[in-house]
Amino acid sequence: MRTDFTALQGVTCVVFGGGGFIGTHLCRALQRLGARVRGFGRSRTNPEALTGIPWTNGEFADRAAVARVVEGCEVVFHLLGVSTPDSSNKDPLGDLLSSTAPTLQLLEICRASMVRKVLFVSSGGTVYGIPRTIPIPESARTDPISAYGISKLAIEKYLALYHHLHGQDFSVLRVANPFGPYQNPNRRQGLVAALMHRIAHAQPVEIWGDGLIVRDFIYIDDVIEALVMAVMYNGPHHLFNVGSGVGRSVLDVVKDIAQVLGRPDAVRIHKPGRATDVPVNVLDIALIDREFGWFPRTEWIQGLMWTADWMNTA
Amino acid sequence: MRTDFTALQGVTCVVFGGGGFIGTHLCRALQRLGARVRGFGRSRTNPEALTGIPWTNGEFADRAAVARVVEGCEVVFHLLGVSTPDSSNKDPLGDLLSSTAPTLQLLEICRASMVRKVLFVSSGGTVYGIPRTIPIPESARTDPISAYGISKLAIEKYLALYHHLHGQDFSVLRVANPFGPYQNPNRRQGLVAALMHRIAHAQPVEIWGDGLIVRDFIYIDDVIEALVMAVMYNGPHHLFNVGSGVGRSVLDVVKDIAQVLGRPDAVRIHKPGRATDVPVNVLDIALIDREFGWFPRTEWIQGLMWTADWMNTA
Repeated sequence: MRTDFTALQGVTCVVFGGGGFIGTHLCRALQRLGARVRGFGRSRTNPEALTGIPWTNGEFADRAAVARVVEGCEVVFHLLGVSTPDSSNKDPLGDLLSSTAPTLQLLEICRASMVRKVLFVSSGGTVYGIPRTIPIPESARTDPISAYGISKLAIEKYLALYHHLHGQDFSVLRVANPFGPYQNPNRRQGLVAALMHRIAHAQPVEIWGDGLIVRDFIYIDDVIEALVMAVMYNGPHHLFNVGSGVGRSVLDVVKDIAQVLGRPDAVRIHKPGRATDVPVNVLDIALIDREFGWFPRTEWIQGLMWTADWMNTA
Repeated sequence: MRTDFTALQGVTCVVFGGGGFIGTHLCRALQRLGARVRGFGRSRTNPEALTGIPWTNGEFADRAAVARVVEGCEVVFHLLGVSTPDSSNKDPLGDLLSSTAPTLQLLEICRASMVRKVLFVSSGGTVYGIPRTIPIPESARTDPISAYGISKLAIEKYLALYHHLHGQDFSVLRVANPFGPYQNPNRRQGLVAALMHRIAHAQPVEIWGDGLIVRDFIYIDDVIEALVMAVMYNGPHHLFNVGSGVGRSVLDVVKDIAQVLGRPDAVRIHKPGRATDVPVNVLDIALIDREFGWFPRTEWIQGLMWTADWMNTA
């Protein structure tokens, strides 16, 4: 990493959702930088990747368990989320109760525990809804077309409220579509992982809609660097897009993955589009570049190759 | 009223929060216009004003009770809210669970019952937070400094989501500070009612902060007209400011009320400011004027005089 992260040595952190894709990488990076990191969540997708990191299996709604793991922490990372945009729209109330409500509980606990900073991974792909300008700046209108996106947005607003009322420091990172090792190909999120898994196993690839929808893919190491930089950031901004700033269509992604895997003959099957899919999403990353000096370092094809390497050895 | 409201004759409506200040006026107006109106809420502040209007005492969280009263309704008005900006900040989770969560239940019920249109009274005074431009257009940034404002904003987003996913028609009215008869002087909301009550009873007036905070006051009859017009509106917009477009400082309001009541000697006591008070809030009402042909008709001093008349006879 290009920044001096020695300030993280000995800092006690907890990662809610530390067992997921981003969380696994974040826990490892914090450990490597000398932070005292612990994880909390329902499960770990890759427990062997988290060796030596204290772990609590728990429900986010369990106030006592959350309070225990936050106690003594300076920095709290909130990456938890059980729903997907699609599943959330089938049960918006369930999404609210499992996502927004326990986050408010967490904020009260952080306040009582004198946590120095809360870092929240929001969703650059859903909070804006259907964009009016591309790339999308942080100041763009936020009209999500999924309950998932509304929950992320509401949590952002509650974080700003706690800052206003109680001086609780925070950063929100609106992350685009991250990809890389440890991403589970069997979840509904994570297009690269899903496509790579199917193509590698010579299974036909399902494309929702015409395949012309455009997304912003960002390699996981770059996301983690932004998250760690946010811990030390002291400037006036609290909310940052984290993406590549480059749009790629699903068809292009299929083509590039097929090429990286040496399977240009991969079969495409077109399925009906989904109501939760915005036609295009590319994030404007000028603000985080200016404030953090952060920009994505991993080239797209390189990121795909590293992901393929991991898949082949996993 | 200036518009032809005959289209409301025989239309079945339910008003959630029909027993409150705005709700009481709305139920009466709908009844007068020939609609079949019923009310639902925890209580009625002025039950005698709602004679002849079927009423259900119930909890908003009681799904079965809400479903029963929605059944057969074409139009649903949602005016319910138990918290205030101040109280919501003491318990953001409680606010979420008593406001946003049961609203999602209501939206599911409306969808299942084939309700034609949902009308939601949002808060023009809190959803924007501290404004960057005055008057505030609907497109301004929404950074509430109260949990109350965040709940209203989240509900607006869920209404837009149900429209996107299920075609559920809706209007949101972001109402400024309404005043007029039936406003309870003993609640924390309703500055005009509180001030008028104290000045009329020769009690000292408590002013939070320096009294220079500016608000947008709108007479209740004008609010009701906007709500009824919204039922029939078929244009492309879903979200409208409803205010006077004029800013008045608290000190000016005290002076004008004292004058209307013939008590220019009213005593002012200054108290510390509150964290939930934005310094200024004046709404831009160009959109609703253009789309509905609506503008406030009641002159400020006239509205105060009518309110004083009601108070004297109540």
